[in-house]
This record gives sequence, structure tokens and C-alpha cells, in this order.
Amino acid sequence: MDLVTIADIRTAASRVADTAVRTPLLPQPWAAPRELWLKPESLQPIGAFKVRGAFNAIATLDDEQRACGVIAYSSGNHAQAVAYAAQRFGVPAVIVVPDVAPRIKVEATRSYGAEVIEVPIGEHEAKAHELADARGLTLIPPYDHAAIIAGQGTAGLEIAEDLPDVDVVLVPVSGGGLASGIGVALKALCPAARVIGIEPALAADATEGLRLGHQVDWPVADRARTIADGLRAQPSELTFAHLQKVVDEMLTVTEDEIREAVRTLARSARLVAEPSGAVTTAAFLFHADELPAGKTVAVVSGGNIDPTQFADLLT
Amino acid sequence: MDLVTIADIRTAASRVADTAVRTPLLPQPWAAPRELWLKPESLQPIGAFKVRGAFNAIATLDDEQRACGVIAYSSGNHAQAVAYAAQRFGVPAVIVVPDVAPRIKVEATRSYGAEVIEVPIGEHEAKAHELADARGLTLIPPYDHAAIIAGQGTAGLEIAEDLPDVDVVLVPVSGGGLASGIGVALKALCPAARVIGIEPALAADATEGLRLGHQVDWPVADRARTIADGLRAQPSELTFAHLQKVVDEMLTVTEDEIREAVRTLARSARLVAEPSGAVTTAAFLFHADELPAGKTVAVVSGGNIDPTQFADLLT
Repeated sequence: MDLVTIADIRTAASRVADTAVRTPLLPQPWAAPRELWLKPESLQPIGAFKVRGAFNAIATLDDEQRACGVIAYSSGNHAQAVAYAAQRFGVPAVIVVPDVAPRIKVEATRSYGAEVIEVPIGEHEAKAHELADARGLTLIPPYDHAAIIAGQGTAGLEIAEDLPDVDVVLVPVSGGGLASGIGVALKALCPAARVIGIEPALAADATEGLRLGHQVDWPVADRARTIADGLRAQPSELTFAHLQKVVDEMLTVTEDEIREAVRTLARSARLVAEPSGAVTTAAFLFHADELPAGKTVAVVSGGNIDPTQFADLLT
Repeated sequence: MDLVTIADIRTAASRVADTAVRTPLLPQPWAAPRELWLKPESLQPIGAFKVRGAFNAIATLDDEQRACGVIAYSSGNHAQAVAYAAQRFGVPAVIVVPDVAPRIKVEATRSYGAEVIEVPIGEHEAKAHELADARGLTLIPPYDHAAIIAGQGTAGLEIAEDLPDVDVVLVPVSGGGLASGIGVALKALCPAARVIGIEPALAADATEGLRLGHQVDWPVADRARTIADGLRAQPSELTFAHLQKVVDEMLTVTEDEIREAVRTLARSARLVAEPSGAVTTAAFLFHADELPAGKTVAVVSGGNIDPTQFADLLT
């Protein structure tokens, strides 16, 4: 299987330079004497790292594909990212969402000019494939695609450029696109850095799979238990192969640790993080003894959280 | 009177490059069809732009001054900024705070290694001058100082570099250091851009003074009415002279508009902003008809807000 290379990520970086935000590394004095920087992907235009992959994937399409349009299925940040990226490129977009998706996310997706099609939960992936064939649309998958992995990897390239002597990089793992891309970039540019993947204990399929050396399948009902709704997916064959090669360790965090990390990010880092985006900070706060020492970067992958839930967590 | 120049700001930028965060301009798709970018100074290490000036001012001290130490008076972000910057330079710092200052801010200041001296409110400025003389400490004022203005101006330099065709820059006005510095940078590098100062209507002394063409003095009890506790100061002779030259217009916002802007920044921009930091977004949201058209940057100056107050504003 061909894995994404640092050259692919460099090409992606040049493609997304005008559209994705080059997020800074934010030093966190409250973490002293340990040294922590946050990589706030929550500040991307749609509030998550997903725009990096979406922009890169759409940028690789030829004129005919762009004219026909793209399609994606998602109930979350990938939907908004593809809709936003497509609008910026002037490409028609269809997004298939489960009819239980939060109204606020559906409306946001629609606001970027996408055609939103709601289908019963569990059917949105199949419906997207069906529509792609019927209408000649190009499917932009959420993570199982080299261009998506390379796009997400641009975040890792930036970490390596901004902190070349980084020791530890904490990155959330769900479908594995972000961790794969960041891992490829770090292993190429900062080979001494340890890349640690973080999962909720309630959706720790990748942790188990990497320990066993093969993919495992957790029932969707199990994975749905975590508050970190962006981390309920599982790696594909492609991302699993990347994770095996570029992730040094996996570590899991509890639901209470995730909640406390959301609170800490708001109070001490002035960032609105969604639970999925806070798992790396949870690992830093509560699992110091399991982490390598040294200069640590925690990737805050997204900030799309319901305001009421967020307010509840703050107090 | 000698005003700060773009050369001073460029020198300051080279001095603070390793210590202040180079905050990105964050595009805000929710503002469409208008074009808005946020400059999130709330993401600086102590949660406010104040580190820029503090670093620049301390960097200009000679070895003897550094060995003796620095002193500052403040109940807010300037106290933390001087304490943090002094610690990074290995310079002793004394911070005089009013004994009514929030515990959380006093503890944060102390956590950066500063000696904190609490005095009755209204006496902290005099006490700081007295201690500076008695102990040979260098006073770092919050805004009435060329090095402070030049340091804050580095935020304006970054705006000009990142968005050279910016049309409108919205910046909060209190003591006027930030608006002065940003204004100098913009007028030098983007002369067509309009620099608009924003004040709460309840602390609009600079708005009134600039209209009348001379400084005015509002009773402190009046200025204390606004929720934007970082905007209760008044320009000095030095900053007022800068504002007269580099600020094109002033605009005021109401308390309800500020509250709504804090909410919008959290929900749509995933930023924790303090009320003072949200006044520019309030102007964008509620005073569009009074603003020039075009590419707009709103400076979010700080993010230090009490978590309970923040949670209340969110829901």
C-alpha cells in the first residue's frame, strides 16, 4: 500500500496556503514547569482542521470534475469543511447528512451554499455513493483518501517548522486522517519527536487495534458513548497502515478528563474547544506520568460545541 | 512631541519576535457577504496584547536596570504582562495592585514570579512611583510610554503584512496604547485603510476628547460603569496626540452590544473574549451602517473573563 509522503504534504501545503489558516503554536505558561504549546485548529474557518484536507482534495480535481461537483457524507465538521472549501473553489457541493444531525450544523453547511440532503441515520454513506454515481459527483471521503491525509498533514508540517526541537506531539485519533498526516510530517522532519495518538477510553478501537497489530471493529453503539462526538469513527485500512508506521504510542482518556480539559482550555487558554478537540489536553493534564518528557504540542482539533453544553462545562 | 514611528515598531517587532505570539488573521465566514478577519490577541500567553509592549519596554533596559528590576501598577492584564515578560527576561518584578483586584488575577501575576504588593484602591499608582524611587526600580507604565506604544504597534505591523489591502481596522481604545501603535503601523504601511477606535458608550472619554480636539476627564465612577473593565482608563497626553494623528473615527457601543459580541465570538469564532476584547466585534455586528465598507479587521484585545460571567453570557 502506498503511504502519504512528506513530499505529498509539502504539495498540499502550497495548495492550502491561501485558504486554510496557518495556526500558530500557542505557549501555555500555566503548564510550567512543563512546556506546552497548543495548535488551535479550532480557529480554522469552519472551526476544525477538516478544511485542510477538504481544500487539498478539491484542489487536486480536474476541470471536468470541478464542473460536475463534489459530494460528502458527514454529520459533523467534514460536512462543513467540504461545503466551505467547495464554495471557495466555486464547485457545486452536495452533502448527505443523517436526519438526526444537529440543526445548527445543518444550517451552517447550507450557509456555505451546499445542497444538503437528509437521510435516515446509517444510510448517509450509501446514499452518498449512490448519488455520486447517479450525478457524476466526486466523493470526498472524511479520511480514507491520500489527498485528505496529506492535507491534514500540513498541520504537522507547521508544527515541525515552528518548533523543530519538539519532543512530543499529542493528536486525537478517530478515522485517523489527522494523526496519519501529522505523524508522516513529524517522522520526516523531527524524527526524534514522539507522536502520541489520543482516544476516549469509550471509543478506543484504534488503541486496541494497534496493540493487537490489526484493525478491530467496535460496535457503533459502544463508540457512541463518548462525549467526544468527533472521535467515534474508526480507521480505514489506509489510515490504519499509516498509524502503524507513524504513531509511537496510544493513550486513552476518560469522559471526566475530557470535560475538565474543555474547562481548562476555556479558562487558561481562552479557546472554545469541542470535547474531541480537548482529548489531547486531557492527556497532558491527567496522564503526565505516561507521557515522554519534553516540549509538548497538543493539537486542539476543533471547536464546534453546543453553547449550552459548553456553558454547563464551564461552571 | 515625538510620536512613535514605523521604524520604532519594526525594531519592537524584532525584539518581541521570540516571545509574543504572531497571532494570525482569522477569516470569519459567518460574516458573509461582508469580509471580516479577527486578530485574536486573546491568545497571547497571558491572554492579552499587553505582552507586546511589556516585552518591548523591558528589552530596551540596560543591564543595570535589568539587575535592579521593574515595577508596574495595574489591576488587570498589564500586571500579568509585565510579570510574565520580566520572568522571561530573568528580571525581578514588583507589581502593585489594588486590594480589590480579582484573586484569580493576583494569583496569576504571582505565578509568574512577581512580588505582588496590595494597596487600597486609588493608591496603587502613587505607591508604585514611591517604590520605584526607594528601590531603584524602573517603572513600566501601562500605555504612557513610547516603547509600550511601539510594542503594541507590532500587532498593526502584522495586520499590514498579512492583509495589505485591508480597508478598515477596528481597535479598542482605553489608555490608547494599542490604538496608537496599530494606527501608526497602518498609516505608514496601508495609508488607505481607515482606523476606527471603539469605546463603550459608558466610557467614551476619548471619543468626546477627539471630537472636541482636546483631552477630557471623565469621573472614574462614570467610567467604572462599563462591563468592559479593561477600557476604563483614559489616554495620556502622549497617546492622545497619537490618536489625533492616526485614528480616523471613533465609534461607541452599548453594554448589550458588548455582551452579544462576547457570545458571538464564542459561538461563531470559538474565541473566549473578555468584554473589552469584544467591543470591536460589537461595532461590526451592530454599527455596520456607520462603518466604511470593505475588508475589515477587528482586534480582539484580550480574553481574561471570569468563567462564571462568561458562562452566564453564553446562554
